[in-house]
Amino acid sequence: MDNKFPGKDITIEDLKTKFPLVAKKSPNHKSKFDVSGVEFGGQTIPVFAGPNMVESRELIFDTAKNVKSLGAHFLRGGAFKPLTFPYRSKKYNETREDGIKWLSEAKKEIGIPIITEVMEERYIDLIASTADILQIGSRNMQNFPLLTACAKTQKPIMLKRHYGSSLRDWLGAAEYLLVEGNEKVLLCERGVSVPHTHRSTSRFLLDLQVVPAAQELTHLPIIVDPSHATFWRPWVRSMSLASIAAGADGIMLEVHPDPENSAVDPLQPINYESFKALMKEMDLLAKTLFKRKILFNNS
Amino acid sequence: MDNKFPGKDITIEDLKTKFPLVAKKSPNHKSKFDVSGVEFGGQTIPVFAGPNMVESRELIFDTAKNVKSLGAHFLRGGAFKPLTFPYRSKKYNETREDGIKWLSEAKKEIGIPIITEVMEERYIDLIASTADILQIGSRNMQNFPLLTACAKTQKPIMLKRHYGSSLRDWLGAAEYLLVEGNEKVLLCERGVSVPHTHRSTSRFLLDLQVVPAAQELTHLPIIVDPSHATFWRPWVRSMSLASIAAGADGIMLEVHPDPENSAVDPLQPINYESFKALMKEMDLLAKTLFKRKILFNNS
Amino acid sequence: MDNKFPGKDITIEDLKTKFPLVAKKSPNHKSKFDVSGVEFGGQTIPVFAGPNMVESRELIFDTAKNVKSLGAHFLRGGAFKPLTFPYRSKKYNETREDGIKWLSEAKKEIGIPIITEVMEERYIDLIASTADILQIGSRNMQNFPLLTACAKTQKPIMLKRHYGSSLRDWLGAAEYLLVEGNEKVLLCERGVSVPHTHRSTSRFLLDLQVVPAAQELTHLPIIVDPSHATFWRPWVRSMSLASIAAGADGIMLEVHPDPENSAVDPLQPINYESFKALMKEMDLLAKTLFKRKILFNNS
Amino acid sequence: MDNKFPGKDITIEDLKTKFPLVAKKSPNHKSKFDVSGVEFGGQTIPVFAGPNMVESRELIFDTAKNVKSLGAHFLRGGAFKPLTFPYRSKKYNETREDGIKWLSEAKKEIGIPIITEVMEERYIDLIASTADILQIGSRNMQNFPLLTACAKTQKPIMLKRHYGSSLRDWLGAAEYLLVEGNEKVLLCERGVSVPHTHRSTSRFLLDLQVVPAAQELTHLPIIVDPSHATFWRPWVRSMSLASIAAGADGIMLEVHPDPENSAVDPLQPINYESFKALMKEMDLLAKTLFKRKILFNNS
Repeated sequence: MDNKFPGKDITIEDLKTKFPLVAKKSPNHKSKFDVSGVEFGGQTIPVFAGPNMVESRELIFDTAKNVKSLGAHFLRGGAFKPLTFPYRSKKYNETREDGIKWLSEAKKEIGIPIITEVMEERYIDLIASTADILQIGSRNMQNFPLLTACAKTQKPIMLKRHYGSSLRDWLGAAEYLLVEGNEKVLLCERGVSVPHTHRSTSRFLLDLQVVPAAQELTHLPIIVDPSHATFWRPWVRSMSLASIAAGADGIMLEVHPDPENSAVDPLQPINYESFKALMKEMDLLAKTLFKRKILFNNS
Repeated sequence: MDNKFPGKDITIEDLKTKFPLVAKKSPNHKSKFDVSGVEFGGQTIPVFAGPNMVESRELIFDTAKNVKSLGAHFLRGGAFKPLTFPYRSKKYNETREDGIKWLSEAKKEIGIPIITEVMEERYIDLIASTADILQIGSRNMQNFPLLTACAKTQKPIMLKRHYGSSLRDWLGAAEYLLVEGNEKVLLCERGVSVPHTHRSTSRFLLDLQVVPAAQELTHLPIIVDPSHATFWRPWVRSMSLASIAAGADGIMLEVHPDPENSAVDPLQPINYESFKALMKEMDLLAKTLFKRKILFNNS
Repeated sequence: MDNKFPGKDITIEDLKTKFPLVAKKSPNHKSKFDVSGVEFGGQTIPVFAGPNMVESRELIFDTAKNVKSLGAHFLRGGAFKPLTFPYRSKKYNETREDGIKWLSEAKKEIGIPIITEVMEERYIDLIASTADILQIGSRNMQNFPLLTACAKTQKPIMLKRHYGSSLRDWLGAAEYLLVEGNEKVLLCERGVSVPHTHRSTSRFLLDLQVVPAAQELTHLPIIVDPSHATFWRPWVRSMSLASIAAGADGIMLEVHPDPENSAVDPLQPINYESFKALMKEMDLLAKTLFKRKILFNNS
Repeated sequence: MDNKFPGKDITIEDLKTKFPLVAKKSPNHKSKFDVSGVEFGGQTIPVFAGPNMVESRELIFDTAKNVKSLGAHFLRGGAFKPLTFPYRSKKYNETREDGIKWLSEAKKEIGIPIITEVMEERYIDLIASTADILQIGSRNMQNFPLLTACAKTQKPIMLKRHYGSSLRDWLGAAEYLLVEGNEKVLLCERGVSVPHTHRSTSRFLLDLQVVPAAQELTHLPIIVDPSHATFWRPWVRSMSLASIAAGADGIMLEVHPDPENSAVDPLQPINYESFKALMKEMDLLAKTLFKRKILFNNS
């Protein structure tokens, strides 16, 4: 970053006074850190895979086993899920404490680290006892008391961008995490709200331009979640490859053994077979272009 | 609402299953309720006026006296203020517990009810002991644990719309309040984020179309906040009058004795003189068009 | 406009170099001009009313007679209509040269001036022989050759804002008209594209904030078209009143004798009875607040 | 496309009745056609490179020679340029007929085909005598008379998407070209207008999701222009690679020998050296992932 840095929404002054901990100290400054044996910000591009919701113990064990064997570094899945309305359908049934227990069991028995969302301060301890990474969902991006409480656990945190948030606000929210002395922070892009979507099936537009934009300003690794933005299975492959090519430091994917019967958003998860093929393509791309890798050994 | 109701984002089914308490029961269904002697949803169009921030005891007493004498029904002012970044400038100094104390003193001594924002569950009791209406800020619109905790106090609540939120999500959030048995709920429009703003001074676009849209679906009163959306003093009069003409059930205005020296957003508050003139115009408009009123007696 | 004018998207320098003819010369500078006996920019707030499309001779004569008797100053109606796709349905049938002829006959026999859209240079002469005001549709806002050719006729022109256009681009396009020596130019706001519409029935958001924003910068009269933005009959009244209250210098409305059987967009026109009531309310509002008027004599 | 195609904005009915010529006839249907010896829609991913504006004969000859030798398939450059305001600066000087002449000379002497923009019907013949591909700029996307006149030349056409346009409107505009019997049509994504841009330097967001979305519906090749959307040189590489990875059928890039002294938008072009490196990376990516190629021989 030289003095000619021409931003107006984000100024050089902002970098110094608004998010000094989040801002890069030098052009090549990039955070590298280990989470449960997986390196972020370095040569590996970790992949989080699993179902949208922790629907049942069976589902979690099945996906944990399968995505692990196909090369995923973390199992994802929500036990506590935000609902737009206060009523739950039979199908859409949060499993809450049970869900966390199943994640914990899968982690131990199958040996895959866990990322799952924290919605409320009161459940931080419970979730932190199992999760390797605490996820802050996009609707909570600026819920600063929750951010601060999560940061104080010193657990690694992934902060999803709100779909209506500027990069400036997102980096400001991340600063709330770093100011607590927590240095293991990941940013996650998951689609922004735009006027001109392509079909009703796509409610959000994946903002890949934010990958180089964020990397120009911050040393924090940038994860991209193409499943949620596209909301449409057939586009997930293209947008995952584009995410890697744009320079993403990690990928979050919805994977489900029976996507059409997923408890939520059944148009969006991919099945194991598609996941397997996509992992190979992403790995090939990362190796060819960036000398980074996704797959290890023979996975 | 007849059966030909043509919405797709919000269906008749949604009204019954997603927000049954928020939805109108009949075309003329409208909530009316009293808050500290002021009627909402009826013939009065209440006005909330005051500074953005509770900067000092002097400011609060001065504005309380003046806006009350000019006809405001409630004093507004934030003691706990959300900050995009975790660092506070000298000027922008939250007064927190002190601010609440000053609001409480002004309320007693000057006799004007209070609306102020709740940012965190831990301060609900403190704030509820003074505030006549708890304000949920737009960034917390979908902070459901906070919403539920505020609703349980049974205090009247004003729920600001997130700048990136659809009407559907907003009504869903309001349902979280009503489901706790709290029936004194106000909705507040404060501008949406759009691609095509007019000047850098206007970051948001006041969405007045949402007034008839919301009133078609819900019985809850709709408040409009033109100060925040315009972010520019010279447009506040036009947009306040337009809000009343669009059918707003209440108006929230930033009023400051010395706007250019306001601790935050100094381009946006109006002074006492402008407020006085605007109150008369809004009152005239409300009486002429709708047989509603803002001003009482000789105020 | 003083030197502290804080715009960034539009600077004081822009006013001098980008749109010097469109820019106000002094704070109270406002264009007033006569079109076929109707004054724009002065005490009158002219109303353009009629169907979306010139469907038939019968429709045009019926609406011309009725909207004139109810106080409309101009008959609106499109004979040449832009279509998103190159195929025409039976119902949606442009009447083109026939439509212009019917407008011309209605103008002479019933005595109401005409505003209608010009889509192509080749039809300017034909349309200008009948129309009192040439309308440039929003998709052509930056079709500069068309703008220049229309301006050269020296006919009054109404320039609709593109739904994705900033105020800066809109004023720039208007400068293309004034630079040809044509001083009778009207701007028309008709809704902008936003991420968060209220229902599928509303595709655009009427931007009333642009009324004071434009009036701060330009002397040109600002017309508002609430029918097109709301796309939903029940909201037209509220948004028309709000347009007047925001300071609009004219109103464009879709009025149809049998709205549900309108050839296009049947959810949006109002019938004669609603138009009659709305004209009275808008007139009352204009007189009460601004000492302007819509209705004359006993209409 | 099976019967469960879940679009609402675009329905299966639309594919049949609104844009039947643009729509795919079968899942693998893809247009392939030759333009001046370069194949579109097949194994090659053609690259258009050159300056934003045809500033001078020297510039055109220099860039033509250099981008050709580095593997570009077409020289791009605007001789007729749309201006937001009717006044031209000294620096920003359209070269018009001269510019077309220089492009024509460079084409003959250096042997590289040309793509350049058509702004007005009156210049179609002139431009078509030189250009191998006629470019329709985004502001003219729905200027249907211009589209029809260009299509009738039977020259290949590239249709840029308006920054505020849905995929549905874009495909509808393309249908206007195909209905004239012109089958050599390219679509070009160049960024959409969004509320939440990253910095003032980025005015648009490159919509890569539209690549798989368009390819699901239409057989027409999809070009992506990352220079214009990012408006910021340092992001061009990432977004170009992401475009290829998303499945783009062609890339349009601004390349200038002295970017900082480009007559327009000097923040956006890349220099020859960056272009050379990027061509190699894009080629490697295309070969590795898709068995497509950009570079031939030893270029």
